[in-house]
Amino acid sequence: MIARRTVLSLAAVSFSALVFASPACAQFAKPEDAVRYRQSVFVVMGAHMGRLGAMAQGKIPFDARAARHSAQVVETMARLPWEGLTPATESLESHAKPELFRNMDDVERLVEALNVETAKLPAAAGSLDTLRTQVGATGKACKACHDKYRQKI
Amino acid sequence: MIARRTVLSLAAVSFSALVFASPACAQFAKPEDAVRYRQSVFVVMGAHMGRLGAMAQGKIPFDARAARHSAQVVETMARLPWEGLTPATESLESHAKPELFRNMDDVERLVEALNVETAKLPAAAGSLDTLRTQVGATGKACKACHDKYRQKI
Repeated sequence: MIARRTVLSLAAVSFSALVFASPACAQFAKPEDAVRYRQSVFVVMGAHMGRLGAMAQGKIPFDARAARHSAQVVETMARLPWEGLTPATESLESHAKPELFRNMDDVERLVEALNVETAKLPAAAGSLDTLRTQVGATGKACKACHDKYRQKI
Repeated sequence: MIARRTVLSLAAVSFSALVFASPACAQFAKPEDAVRYRQSVFVVMGAHMGRLGAMAQGKIPFDARAARHSAQVVETMARLPWEGLTPATESLESHAKPELFRNMDDVERLVEALNVETAKLPAAAGSLDTLRTQVGATGKACKACHDKYRQKI
């Protein structure tokens, strides 16, 4: 049990290190580039979550191949935008509330919870029933962060 | 040889069908959404190609793990934006030259050539030498389409 906890803990550290610990200057020339990058990722993720949601709600026909494709895109996208949440971007207008940047530990926790759900999406895309359940769980994980740290602009 | 050609041909048809044959209305509510989607994909792809290019040119240290991550993102992104190139978007201001929409067969050919190169990127990211070669080949495939169909705005 201790060993298992250690592995999980190491995995969490490794994930956080990869996603959050990169200095902004190493990845983005300007804070504006970081905002543009993360917003672009959210546009792509949102488009494909929208397609999965439309299938889950019966607004478009279920198509396992298209669902799997969109699920894989969402899984990939959900790992990307967080490195764009650098302190240097706090003063720029965006959907990020100012308090986000003062609660990065909480944001990391919410991102990790999101990634647990998005990682299940591709396998869940095989049937409408499993897709519907997993789209719901993923949507909840999105909303948990949006409710606390996303604002309208 | 005939069998191999048939397989390749079927693969090409399948790829084109997936990428180009979806009616715009099925994927995007408005032409503006299609433009925003494809531009967002290009921002994400460009950010990660930029990182690979910086490693290839020695501007930042080679890091096999980071290179593989960026290579995988580029490979995924390079399959996405083309469905946003719908005829309904021709009248909207964007980097797409008007003649792009009258030469979709040629665009498909260039996209397929790009995807051949981006598919090789993740394996090539294992060493600086192979990465440098494959970033060069990928950049050429990007440029082949940009030279013909991309404009400044």
